[in-house]
Amino acid sequence: MFRSHPLLTDLYELTMGEVYLREGLNDYAVFEMNIRHKKERNYYVSVGVLELAKEITQLRFSEEDIEYLRSLNRFSEDFLNYLKNFKFRGDIWGIPDGRIFFANEPVVVIKANRIDGQILETLVLNTLAYQINSASKAARVYSVAKGKLLMEFGARRASGIDAAVKVSKAAYIAGFDGTSNLLAGKIYGIPVFGTMAHSFVQTFPSEFEAFLTFAKVYPDNAIFLVDTYDTVSGIEVAIEVMKLLMGSLKMVGIRIDSGDIVELSNYAKKRFEEEGLTSVKIVLSGDLDEWKIAEVVREGYADAFGVGTEIVLPSDRPSLGAIYKLVEDKEGFKHKFSKGKVVIGGSKQVYRLYRGDGKIEKDIIAHESVHYDGEPLLVPIVKEGELLLEHDVKEARERFLRDFSTLPDEYKDINITFNPPIEYSQELKIM
Amino acid sequence: MFRSHPLLTDLYELTMGEVYLREGLNDYAVFEMNIRHKKERNYYVSVGVLELAKEITQLRFSEEDIEYLRSLNRFSEDFLNYLKNFKFRGDIWGIPDGRIFFANEPVVVIKANRIDGQILETLVLNTLAYQINSASKAARVYSVAKGKLLMEFGARRASGIDAAVKVSKAAYIAGFDGTSNLLAGKIYGIPVFGTMAHSFVQTFPSEFEAFLTFAKVYPDNAIFLVDTYDTVSGIEVAIEVMKLLMGSLKMVGIRIDSGDIVELSNYAKKRFEEEGLTSVKIVLSGDLDEWKIAEVVREGYADAFGVGTEIVLPSDRPSLGAIYKLVEDKEGFKHKFSKGKVVIGGSKQVYRLYRGDGKIEKDIIAHESVHYDGEPLLVPIVKEGELLLEHDVKEARERFLRDFSTLPDEYKDINITFNPPIEYSQELKIM
Repeated sequence: MFRSHPLLTDLYELTMGEVYLREGLNDYAVFEMNIRHKKERNYYVSVGVLELAKEITQLRFSEEDIEYLRSLNRFSEDFLNYLKNFKFRGDIWGIPDGRIFFANEPVVVIKANRIDGQILETLVLNTLAYQINSASKAARVYSVAKGKLLMEFGARRASGIDAAVKVSKAAYIAGFDGTSNLLAGKIYGIPVFGTMAHSFVQTFPSEFEAFLTFAKVYPDNAIFLVDTYDTVSGIEVAIEVMKLLMGSLKMVGIRIDSGDIVELSNYAKKRFEEEGLTSVKIVLSGDLDEWKIAEVVREGYADAFGVGTEIVLPSDRPSLGAIYKLVEDKEGFKHKFSKGKVVIGGSKQVYRLYRGDGKIEKDIIAHESVHYDGEPLLVPIVKEGELLLEHDVKEARERFLRDFSTLPDEYKDINITFNPPIEYSQELKIM
Repeated sequence: MFRSHPLLTDLYELTMGEVYLREGLNDYAVFEMNIRHKKERNYYVSVGVLELAKEITQLRFSEEDIEYLRSLNRFSEDFLNYLKNFKFRGDIWGIPDGRIFFANEPVVVIKANRIDGQILETLVLNTLAYQINSASKAARVYSVAKGKLLMEFGARRASGIDAAVKVSKAAYIAGFDGTSNLLAGKIYGIPVFGTMAHSFVQTFPSEFEAFLTFAKVYPDNAIFLVDTYDTVSGIEVAIEVMKLLMGSLKMVGIRIDSGDIVELSNYAKKRFEEEGLTSVKIVLSGDLDEWKIAEVVREGYADAFGVGTEIVLPSDRPSLGAIYKLVEDKEGFKHKFSKGKVVIGGSKQVYRLYRGDGKIEKDIIAHESVHYDGEPLLVPIVKEGELLLEHDVKEARERFLRDFSTLPDEYKDINITFNPPIEYSQELKIM
């Protein structure tokens, strides 16, 4: 329902296209998207590649789009005609959704006529970068949560509906158990979670009545939000209601959304144990990230975490800074050496090598013409405009869980940063 | 084309709704969205309110949506029936797009049946917060650019298509001159800008051929990207081409996208002057923000700036942390005192008072029942489900420019932070 649009492109992609068409330069070219290494992430999770590839095969400029472009007085009728007949006829290779990859590795490679590859730049970066960013952050949360239930609560913090839905999907692929976002639940079949907000508690004359009423309607899922007024007294009210309805409640718990959650979660656990309420679930939320969750796992108590803002907009890395670059055409490899912005040319494949214990040893980035004995990460997704692989969220999640189990433990440490374990094959070395 | 969807909501909004319906609590309630004060922003720019209000009046649950909700086994047929017949019939008040407002002021107030107001929470926050965040950052850029041309280049860094289009609009409303994003240009009638990327330069055997070819196709808009290989030598190549085509070029310039742009822009300006090329435009881009632009304006040279990432995802404030809260129902004002998260209840109006010189003196936040002699910022947008005000981008931009001229200069200082100039009317004071 949130389809890609061919006009979601920067004007310069089309002004360049006009020149290419006029000058006979619309020949074969290879573009790749990759992520520059920054120390905040040891690894990345591919998300969105298969959906995007499908949408690219469906992109068409409408009459109205052409009319708009004509109104800009910058394009020839020849070029407008080219766009009118545009249908992606090239190849797309990519690292499928759910797989773990490293900085500098091409996550998508587009081989097409130069114009067609060029005009996709904006859309590819726009669609993939934030999904990969959210999934990569979610994986860090997953890595410290030690099996506790993880719920994605970020819809309200996402930048629009499209982002909210795709971030829910990204988090689910990267190890989360579900989301509060119903639209994501519907579209992708992701499990949905949720109970009550502060406004619910405020609707009733007292917390007691709020909890009691909720528990009667939802005896299977009675999680009371205890911090509307005062968390410590909220816990006592929850205990009172739990004891009153004891036996009729199938699943009962509390959620704490503010304050010192380490201290409060320990306090709550102790009170429930004192009262013999041993099966009460403790859910924590409120500006959580991987560090806070690691702290709770170490020093506090929780059965489940709700994480929103930091998945949607990771504050330690708001933008991934992904790039989409021309890397090869019939003239050869296209290297680029701007200060601090080196691009290594060549149409690439990435081979993954494993150690004896099944963990990742390193990835070798090689030109596509060179073969290594290793697992190729880039697979063909579109061949001459035809889609070869369909997206499936559950398969993507399984790919993630499998790859995560092959990631050496040191890369999962949220406080230690590594250079990516990549090596360039001889033919790509530029100095 | 990017319509709001009623399922873009958190599950708990509907579980609460089920309880309200069953318990006869679906009576009149007032919800408001506001932004908690944080020191990074002295003021905010309203964007998206009018479009959202219109979409809210059009929200309907489809048969398929109802079927999905039924499949969750959490809702009664009565409640599903309520949703099936849902059409927003309440009132929406808001601060119209383009207006400047302050932390803690309600930017949107929704007065409706409790269920209807509650289920809109996620959508309201999701749709408005990032647009307001981007517009408020763009206004800071505008405040230091001293009339230089400002182009929004963020489409590739935005979180999806919807975000890209709406952020372009937000930046335009908050003083930018246009965008590189063609879809935003088409949908909102915003001026579009752009010329060439590094891949264009790399497509040719030399920079000289790249610039020459481009200038012949676009003599009205020949901006050469000079930093693909080496900026200093790129500038010399640009000079060579300009001299060769002198007279036939109507608008010519260079763009620098990397390196020390203060030093390089001064160097370029000097070289152009030495060569008698006085009308050459200098465009700067590459991870710019308000501080970098202020530095260039002070110590370097530029005719135009392209700003992307920092408008789309402001790194000093990735998330606005907006809230949407129940503030009043028939029981009275709904205050909330959780630690560090105080909500002042009451259905509010905001009155703006001006000083003798026409600048903003302060805003008074009052209960709607109390009148002040001042300009009311909240206006009725939807009345009993009927839309009263249509969105218009140009009007919104004019509102911004007018309000910006009334903002005291000290609030425009990007390095000094103020508490919001707001005052609560007596009846809202809680201690």
